[in-house]
Amino acid sequence: NTYRIAVIAGDGIGKEVMPEGLRALRAAADAYGFEVDAVEFDYASADYYLEHGQMLPDGWFEELRRFDAIFFGAVGWPDVVPDHVSLWGSLLQFRRHFDQYVNLRPVRLLPGITSPLAGRKPGDVDFYVVRENTEGEYSSVGGRMFEGTDRETVIQDTVMTRTGVDRILKYAFDLAQKREKKHLTSATKSNGISITMPYWDERVEAMAGRYDDVRVDKFHIDILCANFVLHPDWFDVVVASNLFGDILSDLGPACTGTIGVAPSGNINPDRTFPSLFEPVHGSAPDIAGKGIANPVGQIWSASMMLDHLGETEAAAGILGAIESVLATGGDALTRDLGGTGTTASLGGTIASVIAGA
Amino acid sequence: NTYRIAVIAGDGIGKEVMPEGLRALRAAADAYGFEVDAVEFDYASADYYLEHGQMLPDGWFEELRRFDAIFFGAVGWPDVVPDHVSLWGSLLQFRRHFDQYVNLRPVRLLPGITSPLAGRKPGDVDFYVVRENTEGEYSSVGGRMFEGTDRETVIQDTVMTRTGVDRILKYAFDLAQKREKKHLTSATKSNGISITMPYWDERVEAMAGRYDDVRVDKFHIDILCANFVLHPDWFDVVVASNLFGDILSDLGPACTGTIGVAPSGNINPDRTFPSLFEPVHGSAPDIAGKGIANPVGQIWSASMMLDHLGETEAAAGILGAIESVLATGGDALTRDLGGTGTTASLGGTIASVIAGA
Ligand SMILES: CC(C)[C@H](C(=O)O)[C@@H](O)C(=O)O
Ligand SMILES: CC(C)[C@H](C(=O)O)[C@@H](O)C(=O)O
Repeated sequence: NTYRIAVIAGDGIGKEVMPEGLRALRAAADAYGFEVDAVEFDYASADYYLEHGQMLPDGWFEELRRFDAIFFGAVGWPDVVPDHVSLWGSLLQFRRHFDQYVNLRPVRLLPGITSPLAGRKPGDVDFYVVRENTEGEYSSVGGRMFEGTDRETVIQDTVMTRTGVDRILKYAFDLAQKREKKHLTSATKSNGISITMPYWDERVEAMAGRYDDVRVDKFHIDILCANFVLHPDWFDVVVASNLFGDILSDLGPACTGTIGVAPSGNINPDRTFPSLFEPVHGSAPDIAGKGIANPVGQIWSASMMLDHLGETEAAAGILGAIESVLATGGDALTRDLGGTGTTASLGGTIASVIAGA
Repeated sequence: NTYRIAVIAGDGIGKEVMPEGLRALRAAADAYGFEVDAVEFDYASADYYLEHGQMLPDGWFEELRRFDAIFFGAVGWPDVVPDHVSLWGSLLQFRRHFDQYVNLRPVRLLPGITSPLAGRKPGDVDFYVVRENTEGEYSSVGGRMFEGTDRETVIQDTVMTRTGVDRILKYAFDLAQKREKKHLTSATKSNGISITMPYWDERVEAMAGRYDDVRVDKFHIDILCANFVLHPDWFDVVVASNLFGDILSDLGPACTGTIGVAPSGNINPDRTFPSLFEPVHGSAPDIAGKGIANPVGQIWSASMMLDHLGETEAAAGILGAIESVLATGGDALTRDLGGTGTTASLGGTIASVIAGA
């Protein structure tokens, strides 16, 4: 098997962690017997924007759609391009045009990483947040009236479609069904957001009827956030609308101490277009250029990408390598984890464990 | 001074903790020299709904508006009345009709209460969430198209007005200005919610110009939630839209372990209508009727109410009594806090400390 991977490092530490992501990917290819054909692109970056006045070339859609997946670093360099320009001009275009309607993020306590929660140990917390990634609260429908006056009024629509809601629910139920606990939690707010959220609940109920073996519960988003802190062990697969999923998929990694190392998949499960895999962390201008960024998020993203491509053993191999290096850790780790290592030395250590597998 | 207080105990443990709230209030009245004229109402409860088919009598608005404040227990008994009926039929009516446009919630590490966060101590965390309480994401504007078909589409509007946004910001800036740190944090999501949230940011910036002595920062709601867990010591006054405020004001108390004992004020700062004070916890059907509910949230709500009414010493006296009882704690505490006390015995202990002040 040969996989064609579009590689977009982006900005800041994206450029530093990407080589380590590729090193892990190549080590896995050798160890598990597949080929990677990686092509690097310099767009979706501030440098590209400065030169061309736009984040992406006109032909990006045709160019990237031929790949099996997009391996992404981080985008954003606010001193040069405002965030809403760089993000809506790149990442959010990919999500929409490649119909990557699932945003998948693991929430997992890892060995060697200190959780801010008292008394939680690796194994205690291990779940997924499944976020709707194309509609809902992130619509661009709306506007402003009576501009500049005391009557000024701003309106923005949340839009949910049966197609959009049902397909994300189906993905989440399918995922729950494949897991040991077979437990799905829905994020809602139907007691306050009185039109869209009751609709969401209705579709969850309808879908639940088709998955007799999946246990379903729901929480309003306020108490659900509280429960991520109080009872992170309660969850298995959590499904949420675009905005609620955005919140939960930062809060979850925060609770497990992994916000700097967590990965994220922007997935088109129908495979009509490539999916995109990226670390959760951004371009981190404050530490960029120093060679000290933690590459684990990028490497873990490679694992998610391989899982999506069907190389499940290689995916597990990479995650296992990350866990064993973090567990024995010490000096090999980067400074954010209390070690003295660099981006390259930690990446190298993980790659050699993958190779030895 | 005599204060006319409308007392609405509501459902479940609301009925059990309210007597302790009143006991504390009366003890404070005696100790600090003011009068309380408390009138109890049986509506805004499932019992009332069962008898009358509605949550409130027709004349509730005229009846309640004459009071100086409303002291509220908890509403909701889902076995009998669906939550959206009981809540929209009572609490949310009060917020709207009495224009209680501020929802104020303290987030505070208390002695004797175990925080789920590792290594945090009382004094480390002490801030307020100021939530817009009448507009924003909680509008009832919208609807459903193509019902029952594959094209089914549901739309709900978020509506922000200059009046609504500016007055909540003004309240939050005023509060920040009165505090030692003079630090205001705004919750936004202008990188994703592209119409209403940039407007929110704009108004924050405009208001900031009028408060030179207040330090202002902002975070997107996803990373802000993460920072509540990772850096709760960063905050002083956090201001947020209706939905974001709802989330933050449950998450904050969860992080401090106080979700069962935190209070909340639904405030009309202009005093054109009465404000309403209530514990954050709900009616808790699972433990109702056993006499074991923790009355601290109701008693702390009495403290917030007195603060609002201008009895600041009495307010501080009640909070001080709560803290000293929690700190020495032991058996006096209710079971949820590791003691063997009852609702009445813990309430009595706190009242006697207030009286002795
Ligand atoms: C019950 C619900 C409608 C309410 C809200 O979301 O406002 C509650 O969560 C609160 O915070 O008081
Ligand atoms: C940058 C922002 C628009 C984006 C989002 O909210 O989707 C980010 O928070 C994410 O989760 O990938």
